[in-house]
Amino acid sequence: MEKKTPRIEVCFSPLLYPLYENSGSIVVVVDILRATSSIITAFHNGVERLIPVRTIEEARTFKDRGYLIAAERDGRVLDFADFGNSPDNFSPERIRGRTIVYSTTNGTQAIQMAGRGHQVLVGGFLNISALAAYLITRQRDVLILCAAWKNKFSLEDSVFAGALTDKLLGSDRFHTICDSAHAARDLWLLAESDLVSYIDKAANRTRLKKLGLDSAIEYCHTQDVTDVIPVLEGDVLVRLKKL
Amino acid sequence: MEKKTPRIEVCFSPLLYPLYENSGSIVVVVDILRATSSIITAFHNGVERLIPVRTIEEARTFKDRGYLIAAERDGRVLDFADFGNSPDNFSPERIRGRTIVYSTTNGTQAIQMAGRGHQVLVGGFLNISALAAYLITRQRDVLILCAAWKNKFSLEDSVFAGALTDKLLGSDRFHTICDSAHAARDLWLLAESDLVSYIDKAANRTRLKKLGLDSAIEYCHTQDVTDVIPVLEGDVLVRLKKL
Repeated sequence: MEKKTPRIEVCFSPLLYPLYENSGSIVVVVDILRATSSIITAFHNGVERLIPVRTIEEARTFKDRGYLIAAERDGRVLDFADFGNSPDNFSPERIRGRTIVYSTTNGTQAIQMAGRGHQVLVGGFLNISALAAYLITRQRDVLILCAAWKNKFSLEDSVFAGALTDKLLGSDRFHTICDSAHAARDLWLLAESDLVSYIDKAANRTRLKKLGLDSAIEYCHTQDVTDVIPVLEGDVLVRLKKL
Repeated sequence: MEKKTPRIEVCFSPLLYPLYENSGSIVVVVDILRATSSIITAFHNGVERLIPVRTIEEARTFKDRGYLIAAERDGRVLDFADFGNSPDNFSPERIRGRTIVYSTTNGTQAIQMAGRGHQVLVGGFLNISALAAYLITRQRDVLILCAAWKNKFSLEDSVFAGALTDKLLGSDRFHTICDSAHAARDLWLLAESDLVSYIDKAANRTRLKKLGLDSAIEYCHTQDVTDVIPVLEGDVLVRLKKL
């Protein structure tokens, strides 16, 4: 009998996560605009460790202890923070070898929530091929957790989930019976030929444009800028050491 | 200044409903396979009133009081029920002029949850054009609430939400900034030319096939079988009296 391939599931909102949670899964957390794109960029540029925290109060406590802080809410940098949530904040000269404490509206919350999973990886278009290659090697069930916007379905996260699903199914080493995974893949196939135009209708894009933060949008939708995969070890994100 | 058109939002799961709830909205509840399709069919065939109840215990209490009961869980008819949840149960000779108490895995729960909305309508492909025409006349915000499967995203409900969104946006008398509405509409545009084949990958279709209940699938995806729109009045569904 043929061995059953591992399965792919997609969760469109952290509020739905308890329905999909499975201790055997590798969880890929995605918040394209902008937390996971920024985290991947930070590791690409040499950050040593990144500590995701949920609340503003926690971030402030770390600040008092001398840590570098990246923190925003609703797209705005908090007054006591050293960085906002834009990937271009994390230039090599500012962060190489450093530890950063990180708190955002959606993304870092989702990472913390997924912390009980078998293994938690940080994904985005920036590292999608490296991520897919790693997952294909591991041959475990995969759950793609969209950080969403305040728990509402987010187009750009879902399209990324579809892109990753498409790569994994394309390897013929995974299967899915998850409606969200099918829907996300179909959205990706629609969006693929002109991703940034497709995402133009996303609420989050409008939100960032209003705040004058749209410079990062095109970058955050660029594939394969890096091979780096951030992974959660305990409560801290570090760079995945590949086999 | 041009008057702003009412907005459309789509909620993919009852668990997310509190994020979208808005007392000014008309809520359209959809559970294509099969509760809302069956409810529309029951009113088309002359049922007088339909009482949605959440729990099996409530349904049993109504049974003891002499009511006709339609009740299923996970696609199976409950032993004390007079009907299951398939539209072909509700033939005119069995139900005309009667009151039915109705409890299902997903659909009737979503109807009850939405009961606080401005007005709660029951939608499906079976009455989609009548529904769209009525909503266009009303000119209120519209929230399409997918009953989903045990709170997980469901492909057939979401595709219906997209079809209704498409009709409303096509009238130029609505707008949307909701990512779920955009995604649902795009899924509908993909599915439209061959809806039943598209839905073939849905988990719920597989589930019904396993139970030998697939006969209703094609019917539940047929457009405009009726002009009847069930509406919630207090705790009871009745036939909407149009102006």
